Amino acid sequence: MDVPLVDMLCEEPGRPAHPETFLSSQRGKNGLAPVTVGVDFPVCVVLPAGGSGERTGLQTPKQFCLLLGRPLISYTIRSFERVSWIHSIVVVVAKENMDLMTDIVGRFQHTKVRLVAGGSTRHRSICNGVMALAEEDEEQERENKVVIIHDAVRPFVEEEFLYHITVAAREHGASGAIRPLVSTVIATTSEGFLDHSLERAKYRASEMPQAFKFNIVHKAYQRCTEADFAFGTECLHLVLQYCATNAKLIEGPPTLWKVTYKRDLAAAESVVKDKLSRSACVITGACSRARMLADSLHEAFCSLEMELDIIPDVIGDNGGYLHKAWNFIQFFMNVSDLAQLETTFAAIEAARQTLLHPVVVIVVHLSNADRRAVEPAAFAELASTAKLRNILLYGVHVQQSKDAERWARSVAKVAELTSALIRERSEALVGQLLQA
Amino acid sequence: MDVPLVDMLCEEPGRPAHPETFLSSQRGKNGLAPVTVGVDFPVCVVLPAGGSGERTGLQTPKQFCLLLGRPLISYTIRSFERVSWIHSIVVVVAKENMDLMTDIVGRFQHTKVRLVAGGSTRHRSICNGVMALAEEDEEQERENKVVIIHDAVRPFVEEEFLYHITVAAREHGASGAIRPLVSTVIATTSEGFLDHSLERAKYRASEMPQAFKFNIVHKAYQRCTEADFAFGTECLHLVLQYCATNAKLIEGPPTLWKVTYKRDLAAAESVVKDKLSRSACVITGACSRARMLADSLHEAFCSLEMELDIIPDVIGDNGGYLHKAWNFIQFFMNVSDLAQLETTFAAIEAARQTLLHPVVVIVVHLSNADRRAVEPAAFAELASTAKLRNILLYGVHVQQSKDAERWARSVAKVAELTSALIRERSEALVGQLLQA
Repeated sequence: MDVPLVDMLCEEPGRPAHPETFLSSQRGKNGLAPVTVGVDFPVCVVLPAGGSGERTGLQTPKQFCLLLGRPLISYTIRSFERVSWIHSIVVVVAKENMDLMTDIVGRFQHTKVRLVAGGSTRHRSICNGVMALAEEDEEQERENKVVIIHDAVRPFVEEEFLYHITVAAREHGASGAIRPLVSTVIATTSEGFLDHSLERAKYRASEMPQAFKFNIVHKAYQRCTEADFAFGTECLHLVLQYCATNAKLIEGPPTLWKVTYKRDLAAAESVVKDKLSRSACVITGACSRARMLADSLHEAFCSLEMELDIIPDVIGDNGGYLHKAWNFIQFFMNVSDLAQLETTFAAIEAARQTLLHPVVVIVVHLSNADRRAVEPAAFAELASTAKLRNILLYGVHVQQSKDAERWARSVAKVAELTSALIRERSEALVGQLLQA
Repeated sequence: MDVPLVDMLCEEPGRPAHPETFLSSQRGKNGLAPVTVGVDFPVCVVLPAGGSGERTGLQTPKQFCLLLGRPLISYTIRSFERVSWIHSIVVVVAKENMDLMTDIVGRFQHTKVRLVAGGSTRHRSICNGVMALAEEDEEQERENKVVIIHDAVRPFVEEEFLYHITVAAREHGASGAIRPLVSTVIATTSEGFLDHSLERAKYRASEMPQAFKFNIVHKAYQRCTEADFAFGTECLHLVLQYCATNAKLIEGPPTLWKVTYKRDLAAAESVVKDKLSRSACVITGACSRARMLADSLHEAFCSLEMELDIIPDVIGDNGGYLHKAWNFIQFFMNVSDLAQLETTFAAIEAARQTLLHPVVVIVVHLSNADRRAVEPAAFAELASTAKLRNILLYGVHVQQSKDAERWARSVAKVAELTSALIRERSEALVGQLLQA
């Protein structure tokens, strides 16, 4: 099996590494059985990404809008790529965006992706994707294959749900995600008056992903008409009509939501930031006072529902944390110790964390003076170089104190500042030296 | 007519003051005629706010969740309160939240609000609100009255749409907001398979607000059954069934959206932050160099699509800006000038801006030295006092330079920092001195 490099490096067995996988560890919440194994048949994905994103009110089609510097579609691709039993992802893009998409695949090192040119409607695009898959395999291979169809703008789909939808498609020929209706659905008269309301309990919203036995969806697209290509919206409907395959419907979690409006981009960014700010790794160095500060911080972070791993350095076994953390807090006592930052940066880069998300590094200067000794311009310079490596560097100065009350206030302030910097991931504040 | 104090103080004729009104100035975008006048009949609002907010996954019912320190429901109330032709707002709350709601009304000085205890279902709550209105008026008054029913968790409803829905109710007896369906609606079989899809073009999502001639909705609630109270969802349906009144349906703007999930709170906060960060007011003082910096900043802000008003001080006519701005950038040359900040704070408070939203004040220290002269602890102390007054105070130090290129870089950095501070409104960073 072809395991991509990124997965091997970033995901240790038994412990979620990528923030995208955290959610899927909260299993069984939707009443479905938890996922324990993969599948023993080939599974591919078709991801139509040709939309123009009119409803966001933005010029850029929403699948290419950036969340923390990475296009939305890259998040969606990653949601599939990190599932070990998914082998190949066909992304269908409009011809005019082919170069952009090629660039995205290269820059974020997507390894399971193949690009195919889209058609004039959503159905034509999906059809192009399915036909491209048909060319790949022998007849026999196709027989077993399941294809998942998803939207490029539903980036938070989880492995557990993909598993259920895939297994249902294998069993019933087709399957689809549904969600309860959010609003009452009404029929209107031609004059714009209320005709009747639908009984909400009888209906569901049809969402994505959907999954199909490959031969069934392939046949449906071979048989369907020009009118289907032009006006049809539901693949489920095509396989029912042309292959008499009645899809099994499975209620999906709220994480299946679709980025539709501009406000949804803010919501999506907030989801990503939440996931990235659940934990941080403190590098204390050898000093015992730093270690004590780290322990106090640990308590403060607990009350913020953030986990804190504490390690003395990034050498040896401790290097493992670099593959799991998106946020680092490094203590130092002397200005000259700042030079050690390069070791941290290099280790973070080597762990390839910066490939997918900006990594936050906060240096906390534990000093005896009430004023910062670090030269602001030099620190700003260091931070702007780090930013080119997708590392967001901030500084916090904290004065040591033998007065217990004063010291407790300082620790609380360090926790408040570092957690806010981690949560907000502000690019504008990179290189600033803050005061705890 | 009873004009509340907040409106008189904050809204100058002809110029939008509250950020909530900015959107409604983009008129006619949805194809409806622009609003030019009020209405000549009494209009009241019933706002059911008894929901438990299960879907947000939060303990606090979503209508009480805070956005920038203010509960969501206060934003919704404000959306009605600032409409001059709306006279009274009945908020229906669960008994256990009555004290909390009373506190909110007092703290944010809502003036048109009356609280009524809710019932066990949504319909009973709305009914309680309608009955409370019935007690208020003489028979004749009721004849003319229109009542708008809305959700507490749709905070961004605009005056223009309220006008259209109100006028339509006056003409047709009832009216309701509709939106296009976002997903395909499907009927399922009892075994969980696809039965059929609805033709999307024939159906609409029924949203809020809805409006009714008072006597019609009053009669409908008097006539309806226990089953209606327990299971009914649509007021439109009740007036159709019990008063043979067929509602006029009007397509509403996307701003009618409902805060449903936790992610929607992030989206709502982003909408509020967007509105609050569209403009800022620079107070230059008398110094000509500060005035030059302000002019340069003006250009930089333009490219960020933020407006900048530039005034020398907050005295006399310039005080008018205090009623319009949510963000102030104050220049000073000497550390001793920091004492003038109290004048600015007092003026902002007198203008009552801090009542509704935290106001950002950034002091920019234009200095000849490469280091800050301001004492960090003293500035932090000043900021924590300001924060108690709902003023978020930050500092930026910029070193003057005769080198044109270096100066341009500094100006760009001041613009980047100030615009980010305004946009992010971070509480954790209050009292920090940043370096441009």
